Amino acid sequence: MGRQMTNELPTDRTEDGVDRRRLLAGLALLPAISAALGSTPAMAQANAEGGVLSSWQDGAAKQAITDFVRAATDRSSASYIAPAERIATFDQDGTLWVEHPVYAQVVYCLDRVPAMVAEKPELANVEPFETVLSGDHEAIARLPMHDLEKILVATLTGMTSEAFAAEAKKWIEIAKHPRWKRPYTDLVYQPMLEVLQYFRANDFKTYIVTGGGQDFVRVYAEKIYGIPPEQVVGTAGGTKYGYDKDGKPFLTKEPKLLLNDDHAGKVQGIHLMIGRRPCAAFGNSAGDREMLEWTSAGPDARLGMLLLHDDAEREYAYGPAADLPDSKVGTFPPALYDQAKKSKWTIISMKNDWKRIFAFA
Amino acid sequence: MGRQMTNELPTDRTEDGVDRRRLLAGLALLPAISAALGSTPAMAQANAEGGVLSSWQDGAAKQAITDFVRAATDRSSASYIAPAERIATFDQDGTLWVEHPVYAQVVYCLDRVPAMVAEKPELANVEPFETVLSGDHEAIARLPMHDLEKILVATLTGMTSEAFAAEAKKWIEIAKHPRWKRPYTDLVYQPMLEVLQYFRANDFKTYIVTGGGQDFVRVYAEKIYGIPPEQVVGTAGGTKYGYDKDGKPFLTKEPKLLLNDDHAGKVQGIHLMIGRRPCAAFGNSAGDREMLEWTSAGPDARLGMLLLHDDAEREYAYGPAADLPDSKVGTFPPALYDQAKKSKWTIISMKNDWKRIFAFA
Repeated sequence: MGRQMTNELPTDRTEDGVDRRRLLAGLALLPAISAALGSTPAMAQANAEGGVLSSWQDGAAKQAITDFVRAATDRSSASYIAPAERIATFDQDGTLWVEHPVYAQVVYCLDRVPAMVAEKPELANVEPFETVLSGDHEAIARLPMHDLEKILVATLTGMTSEAFAAEAKKWIEIAKHPRWKRPYTDLVYQPMLEVLQYFRANDFKTYIVTGGGQDFVRVYAEKIYGIPPEQVVGTAGGTKYGYDKDGKPFLTKEPKLLLNDDHAGKVQGIHLMIGRRPCAAFGNSAGDREMLEWTSAGPDARLGMLLLHDDAEREYAYGPAADLPDSKVGTFPPALYDQAKKSKWTIISMKNDWKRIFAFA
Repeated sequence: MGRQMTNELPTDRTEDGVDRRRLLAGLALLPAISAALGSTPAMAQANAEGGVLSSWQDGAAKQAITDFVRAATDRSSASYIAPAERIATFDQDGTLWVEHPVYAQVVYCLDRVPAMVAEKPELANVEPFETVLSGDHEAIARLPMHDLEKILVATLTGMTSEAFAAEAKKWIEIAKHPRWKRPYTDLVYQPMLEVLQYFRANDFKTYIVTGGGQDFVRVYAEKIYGIPPEQVVGTAGGTKYGYDKDGKPFLTKEPKLLLNDDHAGKVQGIHLMIGRRPCAAFGNSAGDREMLEWTSAGPDARLGMLLLHDDAEREYAYGPAADLPDSKVGTFPPALYDQAKKSKWTIISMKNDWKRIFAFA
């Protein structure tokens, strides 16, 4: 822990709500994206295998979860929480599924560039599209910020909400992670699926509260996490209402940021979209700090948990809190580790607390 | 229907999201607000009395509701809707409860002025607060727009989200409607409570989608409609995250409009907060038109309904569609009436379709 403490990273968003650091980190680590058909319904597998938290080692982390749920649901407990108030929020990238080497949504944006240029051929020789089309990863990583913003605006806005959802759905079904050569949707953490199920079985409403795009995550959240669109809070842009030539209404996604759902924005998003304070919150990086603070500041039973990526063999290991190299994707600074100890948030060690990480493993 | 057709009123919102026309209309009709303790749990009464749509006359409106629910829930129907997709949205003011002579929230804002000035005595002799304190209703109604905005900003923003909710809760428990001398929460429409219950009994999620303030409506929606905060979509402002001297976090309501949840804004709000297209939508004025269009444009079973206030004796009668004087509060222009006929939306006549209007009647 001898490194410089950075309590909080500055937020730095483009107009359409994508974190610039995320994008840069993504570009710097750009993987070759192969695409092929097929996806494993990890959720169904988790259901079939059953068992409450069966992928968790017995230990402090598992104990914290079961103790909390017991206190929250035991009518004789001083910490009892009425079912209507049982709200649990989960960060997505790095908490529910793999975020390294790069956020899935960043890969989506880069993958969309060729199709986008095919529709507008005049862009083929225009930067930054020319560089992205070149496939030269080093050159892509060197693109200046205003060029990167053009990629985000071009691939995440300007289309109807339905056209975007259809494209994202198509991509998530075929895109594969460069390390495991499997759909991203296979790379959800089996122990966290068990937590989601355990909470729901105890009358909690489970929400995703993600820095990622709300419209993007909603496309697959129901299928892989059992979390419906109305329970996905994410970075969100404005939309515009219009009519087609037959008078049928549509919404167009606009390059206007409504909610930057990261850091304090996560609390603002929870207030805006849920309107209740969560009783439990799970995260894995500096962007989740305020959500855990807000959750912990409520009365009765509370649970705050942070996942530490310390398992290079089975997943990844990164972050100063694990005495590992810092990472721009999912930073877990020492200050957050110290705050967790003071705030009685529980650290989940991926290496020590999880028997297995993926359903397919 | 011989009057001039106005298809849509211009939206005209102050920064903190309150419709200027609404406010003006409210001020012009300013009632004497008496405050006394006591409220009738209308919802509980509705439950106790039971019966599916028992306050509805047999007729086209009731038939439209039951036909829709039957088609949506019958697995053998071509219009079957999976339970997860069963979303029904309801405007609030004038659709679920009384909106005349003035929106309850406008009364709240004016009622808050004395307490607000007590905290900041230097405002007592400053306009517009001096005029509001004078109680001179005609002078209040003549206040220019920039003065009215000051009232809204002063009473709806600047406090913590928790302080606002506590104040609004206190008010809604004691404020009384000038005509019935009962709490506003008694003035919910019994037939609509039955619709909410009927829908929920058939696995629909019921949402409020209101031009009113989201934070305001969330205070009482669960108690009087059985609709939890996370299912209230309304006009919403930004918030700011901060810490008190003990390090406890809080959110401050800011005079920054995030969502103007009226007209097309209702569709934008539905996309932002629900992320699914509703199958059924209920409204009563021009501000609900786009929500009904959006709902009707989906596949399978659809229901669009508009409540016509044509019962001066038991409630109010207003709007050109009822061949009655136009009203700035809850305008139902002839063009909307014509569109309803073309779009197969069903008009609910308060006078002819409802056996009774209030649970206490």
